[in-house]
Amino acid sequence: MSAFGFQISAVAGLARRGTLTTAHGTVETPAFMPVGTNATVKAMTPDALRETGAEMILANAYHLMLRPSAERVADLGGLHRFMNWPGPILTDSGGFQVMSLAKLRSIDNDGVTFRSHIDGSEHRLTPERAVQIQHLLDADVTMVFDECTPYPASAEQTATSMRLSMRWAERSKSAFTARRGYALFGIVQGGLYPELRAESATTLRKIGFDGYAVGGLAVGEGRETMLRVLDGTVPELPMDKPRYLMGVGRPDDILGAVKRGIDLFDCVLPTRSGRTAQAFTRTAMLNLRNAKHATETTPLDPDCRCTACRGFSRAYIHHLCKADEILAAILLTTHNLTFYQDFVRTLREGIAAGDFDSAIAGFPIAQETPSQGEATVPDSEDVMEKI
Amino acid sequence: MSAFGFQISAVAGLARRGTLTTAHGTVETPAFMPVGTNATVKAMTPDALRETGAEMILANAYHLMLRPSAERVADLGGLHRFMNWPGPILTDSGGFQVMSLAKLRSIDNDGVTFRSHIDGSEHRLTPERAVQIQHLLDADVTMVFDECTPYPASAEQTATSMRLSMRWAERSKSAFTARRGYALFGIVQGGLYPELRAESATTLRKIGFDGYAVGGLAVGEGRETMLRVLDGTVPELPMDKPRYLMGVGRPDDILGAVKRGIDLFDCVLPTRSGRTAQAFTRTAMLNLRNAKHATETTPLDPDCRCTACRGFSRAYIHHLCKADEILAAILLTTHNLTFYQDFVRTLREGIAAGDFDSAIAGFPIAQETPSQGEATVPDSEDVMEKI
Repeated sequence: MSAFGFQISAVAGLARRGTLTTAHGTVETPAFMPVGTNATVKAMTPDALRETGAEMILANAYHLMLRPSAERVADLGGLHRFMNWPGPILTDSGGFQVMSLAKLRSIDNDGVTFRSHIDGSEHRLTPERAVQIQHLLDADVTMVFDECTPYPASAEQTATSMRLSMRWAERSKSAFTARRGYALFGIVQGGLYPELRAESATTLRKIGFDGYAVGGLAVGEGRETMLRVLDGTVPELPMDKPRYLMGVGRPDDILGAVKRGIDLFDCVLPTRSGRTAQAFTRTAMLNLRNAKHATETTPLDPDCRCTACRGFSRAYIHHLCKADEILAAILLTTHNLTFYQDFVRTLREGIAAGDFDSAIAGFPIAQETPSQGEATVPDSEDVMEKI
Repeated sequence: MSAFGFQISAVAGLARRGTLTTAHGTVETPAFMPVGTNATVKAMTPDALRETGAEMILANAYHLMLRPSAERVADLGGLHRFMNWPGPILTDSGGFQVMSLAKLRSIDNDGVTFRSHIDGSEHRLTPERAVQIQHLLDADVTMVFDECTPYPASAEQTATSMRLSMRWAERSKSAFTARRGYALFGIVQGGLYPELRAESATTLRKIGFDGYAVGGLAVGEGRETMLRVLDGTVPELPMDKPRYLMGVGRPDDILGAVKRGIDLFDCVLPTRSGRTAQAFTRTAMLNLRNAKHATETTPLDPDCRCTACRGFSRAYIHHLCKADEILAAILLTTHNLTFYQDFVRTLREGIAAGDFDSAIAGFPIAQETPSQGEATVPDSEDVMEKI
């Protein structure tokens, strides 16, 4: 088994082209991780997921601790075997979902007590337990347990919350069992306050992690603000470690973040859009419920190589959407995930070729002022809040 | 393009092993046709469907005339291209669905006026229009338009209804445009009355069809009664034409009907069961929501070759069912359809080997008094009534 590692092979400005090596395989970066909340990327078989080009996925410790439980997954051989995904898996620690989904939260310095959104049962998460859960799941990348700072929040609230997260990050590090090929990532907090972000990054660097995530963004602050925070935060992170922007996002968000030196992304946008009749194309977002598609013999995106675009017309997918057929979700999710993988592959090729901007000329939807088509690309925060 | 035809290669008692040749390929019989009501077999891609072993599918003229309309499908190149299923397709004429689904039906000697169950719009079906619709869809096998006799019905009601259907069968024949590789099937009606079934079969033979269906069964009469009707009806049909038992059914129903000389079947049972956490195995029916499966590392059916059984445990599929994940429907439908195809392939092999009964010894679930397992195999009529 290979040691966990990150090799940068090319740079273009602040953007980096790299390779992440994990216990379950390698990942070319910049990379987009489809979200497999309940140990399944919704509407996708693992084979179909692999065919989109996805190399690494995200699963949610919060959901899996509640159902079927981390111990059950461990008994069944770990998450890779359980869901039949042999590739790398990163697990979210649960901090974000405790805030956004759980009921009757009670936070203290030691951790969080909450009730399950599924059955109301009481549970407790601490940094130690969150790390243990991810170990039981056999996640290649474990995320530290953090408090998700509310937005908006005052500087004082934000500082208090960030410093609690930093103490939890240190406890997460102590609780993590180092294993060859496995990694622990810290999460920078600090809201929209540059000095708090810097303090957080400095604290995490002192503790020392295998990778660094930027958390607490895409929660309603808007794209420009998010990118400004990255402008201030990313330079505070180690050059030689992978950087992960959590829960982001739209193609233009990803483009902006890659330009600022981010390597890893995850978002429910392509999968959730696929279940609500939305398709990404290189030029615009389509709403397949729109009657104009009823007679179109063209595929979703003529430039796409996916199984949905190779075999089916917009007219057929429109029909499936109108009839609420499961195949609509299957085909649109397949397409959207393929679109995302093709987009980040294009970013990787652009960085490698040293010609970043012309590489993404084929994706006008990702430009600063894209033609949004008939449907609006949802803001990352719109989808984040419902995870 | 081959002419439509049916070649019998072996017999075992009344059971026949044959090959159906159509404009879009051949079908080994006895055959089971998965149901693709809205031009999609629910939860299946065409590639995955082909991988189950399915060679021919059924689509519903009633549903497709309402949405997206037969003319739209024709404009888009026909049903095969529309849904990307290059193989043979049989279409139900709509008679059964008009009775079971449509609102405000009004029957006269010429046809039926009804309101759509989707949007309440008014439509009319006559034998001529039903045949035209199936022509527009480009169905390999067109079914005559018939009246679905209510159950129970008196001998007089049944006779009146059957004779109306026979007049409509003759009009369907006149309206049908013969094309190389395409076929028109008549439908025997007559309820539970042997002399009416015989009259119906005789009338249809005089008109002359490429194949003969037995309709009006699996509507609540029970398995033994259904098989008794087949005992009386099948001998009245031509030996050299394919015979199709509409809407049937459970494995034991299919076994009983094959033994009585039926060649073709369709039923929503494997697909609908797959969307309600039910799995067929060779010995029993499983309810994957049952907590006992939560820790089982075995596949759904250890003897199954399908992608669901090759890659996933019962414990994982139980988890997917509990979490209402689309992948549960995908995996269970894939498995159930594979089970049905393996079952009819075993019947074919048994007939060809002249050892019918020992061939199906590996499918105790299909025996006369099967061990039903934790879930009961639904009666065919339970699923028919909701199509």
